[in-house]
Amino acid sequence: MRTLYHLPLSPLCRKVRLYMSEKNLPFQLKVEKVWERRGEFFTLNPAGEVPVLVETEGQAIIDANAICEYLEETYPTPNMLGADPLQRAETRRLIAWFDGKFNREVSSYLVDEKMLKRYIGLGEPNSQAIRAGKANIVHHLEYISYLIERRNWLAGEQMTLADLTAAAHLSSIDYLGDVPWDAHPLAKQWYMRLKSRPSFRPLLADHVPGVPPPKHYANLDF
Amino acid sequence: MRTLYHLPLSPLCRKVRLYMSEKNLPFQLKVEKVWERRGEFFTLNPAGEVPVLVETEGQAIIDANAICEYLEETYPTPNMLGADPLQRAETRRLIAWFDGKFNREVSSYLVDEKMLKRYIGLGEPNSQAIRAGKANIVHHLEYISYLIERRNWLAGEQMTLADLTAAAHLSSIDYLGDVPWDAHPLAKQWYMRLKSRPSFRPLLADHVPGVPPPKHYANLDF
Repeated sequence: MRTLYHLPLSPLCRKVRLYMSEKNLPFQLKVEKVWERRGEFFTLNPAGEVPVLVETEGQAIIDANAICEYLEETYPTPNMLGADPLQRAETRRLIAWFDGKFNREVSSYLVDEKMLKRYIGLGEPNSQAIRAGKANIVHHLEYISYLIERRNWLAGEQMTLADLTAAAHLSSIDYLGDVPWDAHPLAKQWYMRLKSRPSFRPLLADHVPGVPPPKHYANLDF
Repeated sequence: MRTLYHLPLSPLCRKVRLYMSEKNLPFQLKVEKVWERRGEFFTLNPAGEVPVLVETEGQAIIDANAICEYLEETYPTPNMLGADPLQRAETRRLIAWFDGKFNREVSSYLVDEKMLKRYIGLGEPNSQAIRAGKANIVHHLEYISYLIERRNWLAGEQMTLADLTAAAHLSSIDYLGDVPWDAHPLAKQWYMRLKSRPSFRPLLADHVPGVPPPKHYANLDF
């Protein structure tokens, strides 16, 4: 069985989960508490990070981007990057936007601060970091709205890995109740379209012990 | 003419320059001082970051990874990612290692601290950041040595974009004189092999006003 080593609220892991579900690729999940620095896991991935995918024949594929590109090459249908090189460049630009810029400016402040500090016992989240994350997310929701006013999906007319990447980050932050959806109705409508897809269901069922999600998190009508 | 908007010491820009030279793709360089937040450049790339490639017909390709994947699809020879999906996954794992982990733990501390602060006039580099970068680089040079003891190039028997990515980061840091080569002879030998390639020459000729490189920087026998 294909196995994904993951953490439930890691945006990069959530993106791979969404992606494999959209591709109809069966897999099982194993939680890897990376901060425990388990020796066997470091043998698998010397970077010590999730996600790591172990394929049915035992090959380990490491890094969210490498996993998705590998699966796209190996299982090309449905196409999740775009039909031609320029379209794929636009999809990859937006993947880099969310996994790079958004992650640095928002996810690392909100998700890592709140969750990692809790797990590792590093104490209370840094209130300056939380404030920065909450200020920065506004510009990204505006950018999503700007794109969705002009296109059906973030990278163009077809849903792509760019949508799954952005939604994965937002879903982790939404679990923590920190997305100001009501001030950004276009972004919210786009997210609702993704949230109601079957691939999203396992994410909405996630439950981190001691950190219950807000009521709207799994509500498909909110 | 194909144009690359870049900064001379940006590792991500250097990687694209090396890559296009190895592919024999002609291009011209334009320096983009991203901290000036030039309006026309933001229209080209709303993220305001380099590298940006403008193709001969005017299409803008944004983000180092998107640029390389686009060019690899459009100009597949010579192959710079690997012959099969698993080999390409290994190449992409190492690209993510250097553009992600190494960049966070080393380049951002040494290159950004020293160069960006100088450009933007933010004052002296933070000595704690410099110390962290210098401590962290050791582990990465050890990892390069570990790989090169087992393989001809970082990702396997062929030179790939993983080698160019790692060498691009190290070359920026080498320009600032902060790579402890002598303690890492295997990593040094691997870097010398890359440094002596024609694709490296333009990087060795770079000269940032007011920041002269150390003597060994452009020396092919060092």
